[in-house]
Amino acid sequence: MLQLRGLPVVPDPRPSRRARLLETLALSKAEAMLVSHPPNVRYLSGFTGSNALLLVSPKKSVLYTDPRYNFQASAECDCAVKVLTGSTWTDAVKDIARKPISRIALEAARVTHQQWLVASAVFGKKTKLTGVGTLVDRQRMVKSAFEIELIRRSVLLASKVYEKAIRKVKPETTELALAATIDFEMRKLGASGPSFETIVASGEHSGLPHARPRPVQVGRDRLLLVDMGACLDGYASDMTRMAYLGRPTAKATDLHSAVLEAQLAALGMVRAGVQACKVDEAARQSLKKRKLDKAFMHSTGHGLGLEIHEDPRIGRTSADTLEAGMVITIEPGAYLEGYGGVRIEDTILVTETGAEILTPTAKELLVLAS
Amino acid sequence: MLQLRGLPVVPDPRPSRRARLLETLALSKAEAMLVSHPPNVRYLSGFTGSNALLLVSPKKSVLYTDPRYNFQASAECDCAVKVLTGSTWTDAVKDIARKPISRIALEAARVTHQQWLVASAVFGKKTKLTGVGTLVDRQRMVKSAFEIELIRRSVLLASKVYEKAIRKVKPETTELALAATIDFEMRKLGASGPSFETIVASGEHSGLPHARPRPVQVGRDRLLLVDMGACLDGYASDMTRMAYLGRPTAKATDLHSAVLEAQLAALGMVRAGVQACKVDEAARQSLKKRKLDKAFMHSTGHGLGLEIHEDPRIGRTSADTLEAGMVITIEPGAYLEGYGGVRIEDTILVTETGAEILTPTAKELLVLAS
Repeated sequence: MLQLRGLPVVPDPRPSRRARLLETLALSKAEAMLVSHPPNVRYLSGFTGSNALLLVSPKKSVLYTDPRYNFQASAECDCAVKVLTGSTWTDAVKDIARKPISRIALEAARVTHQQWLVASAVFGKKTKLTGVGTLVDRQRMVKSAFEIELIRRSVLLASKVYEKAIRKVKPETTELALAATIDFEMRKLGASGPSFETIVASGEHSGLPHARPRPVQVGRDRLLLVDMGACLDGYASDMTRMAYLGRPTAKATDLHSAVLEAQLAALGMVRAGVQACKVDEAARQSLKKRKLDKAFMHSTGHGLGLEIHEDPRIGRTSADTLEAGMVITIEPGAYLEGYGGVRIEDTILVTETGAEILTPTAKELLVLAS
Repeated sequence: MLQLRGLPVVPDPRPSRRARLLETLALSKAEAMLVSHPPNVRYLSGFTGSNALLLVSPKKSVLYTDPRYNFQASAECDCAVKVLTGSTWTDAVKDIARKPISRIALEAARVTHQQWLVASAVFGKKTKLTGVGTLVDRQRMVKSAFEIELIRRSVLLASKVYEKAIRKVKPETTELALAATIDFEMRKLGASGPSFETIVASGEHSGLPHARPRPVQVGRDRLLLVDMGACLDGYASDMTRMAYLGRPTAKATDLHSAVLEAQLAALGMVRAGVQACKVDEAARQSLKKRKLDKAFMHSTGHGLGLEIHEDPRIGRTSADTLEAGMVITIEPGAYLEGYGGVRIEDTILVTETGAEILTPTAKELLVLAS
């Protein structure tokens, strides 16, 4: 049993997650829901495979999968399992339609238009289909104590690997080699892999927010950005830190200070009850004072958990309000074309009174002797 | 410039790929198509980022993306680029709808039902939406000489890494450590990563076709299955090989022989003009002779290229016919609950006269002294 601050932390009973979903579902008058997005299926059933559909219904919940997952599904799930040999979608829908059902909810933001048409045809006019957008994703926003503990472990693993790997970087290390080393070390500590493609970007390349590591030496006298996270027991972590090989120029330290200031400003706004857009606004306003607001062209953060990008979104147009138990990133950046960029990112837990920063790694520009 | 069998191999001009798509599209009377599946966008535009939509139209093709990909999109694409700051889908659809268009095609098997509803609302009654299923995926089935060369390289890289890594396995090596080593070595040779989560499964665990590597020693006197592939320059490879630490039992060698026989039987059927289901049938019939047909619960193979699983599917119900230039896997298996399983998989090129096996690694049960 996990321990968190002296309290025992036990896995969440999945039937209670499904019961909660059915309560929300009742608002849209649907009797049952067919869940198809894999992280949502996992959240509600425990199944970790890649192909399954979960019927959540007051009478009986059923996981539909294919024969590859025969043994695994029975071992992992606490609900009924049916193994289908044909198209999982079509056959599951046919199986459900064998009993009368007046209204069934589907994940309209996950189900393809083609799947929707198949379901319409199979259910016919007696059953209404209701699109419920991202209902389960919304339920996943606030994490349980058990989930927070899993994310905490994922975050600590990533930090540990970063701190060790970055100290070994030489000017002749390639971006790809550093990324591969980070991924390897995360795996060695038990991660199933990186939670997204590890970003290592040096010099000008750090000016691309979604740079991919190249077979190019990181070199000296330039910025070095590392954006990485682990996937551990299904849960993601996410961090970005900046280093510099050699003596940083005033331009580099100024850019770093400006982004750090913005990150701290955003962190200072975080607390249950605050609108997510206000957190984004705090980072943006801080950068504006340094005339860097136009150099910040992405959002300030995002939720994470079973997926690397989840609700809530911490952006300009976000309509979400922060709640205690949400786990989000705070990651403003500033990118100068032809020079490079800085991004500083923590994974944090929203609490009633503020933000608990889960990422333990120091945020200063790390100066490495070259 | 790449060389293939003495002939120069040049990258395919993407405008000709788009022209070919427009020809097929004309059959459904659509004037233009909005492509959304990332590998399809990449295939038709060159863009390698994660978020983009591509309008393919006789007048002008436009790639829509978000500000993170501002520089990258212009550098990679040979068509117009528009950077949108709001929802990429909604804003792209609005931009397209500014000019009159009578019928536009969407990827019904990729677009979510919600996106379809947004498009319907924005285009209104003057524009008809046509769902075209997997039109671009179908176009991607037959590979160009350039793509075949890229897959060949990806296959060679994976084999090289496997052959080196498997020789170093000791009974105390964990499944996870071997998987991590394989991934690391692939990265060091230039792969952007594995083309899917590397499977290392020993003993009983090899009986799960989609086993995930565990922090468990591979041990001795049992089967060891490795299923792996690289992603190199965007192109996937896929191979499965079997090893045994110690002296194999008759049960292990018999199971291996039976699957190898089935794999050779399936390979023997491959040639342009043959129905894919006949190739699957050959593997299944071969296993049936050994009373192992029920132990083979997945399909015989699948296409691969920009994605690890592509059309055509080589399965019982596949309606596809093989064509020269298709690149597919042939991977029958037999899985015995409580004992373990064997799978043998090559990546192959379909030719007019047969199958060219791209995977150079020997297929015998590799006996490792323990």
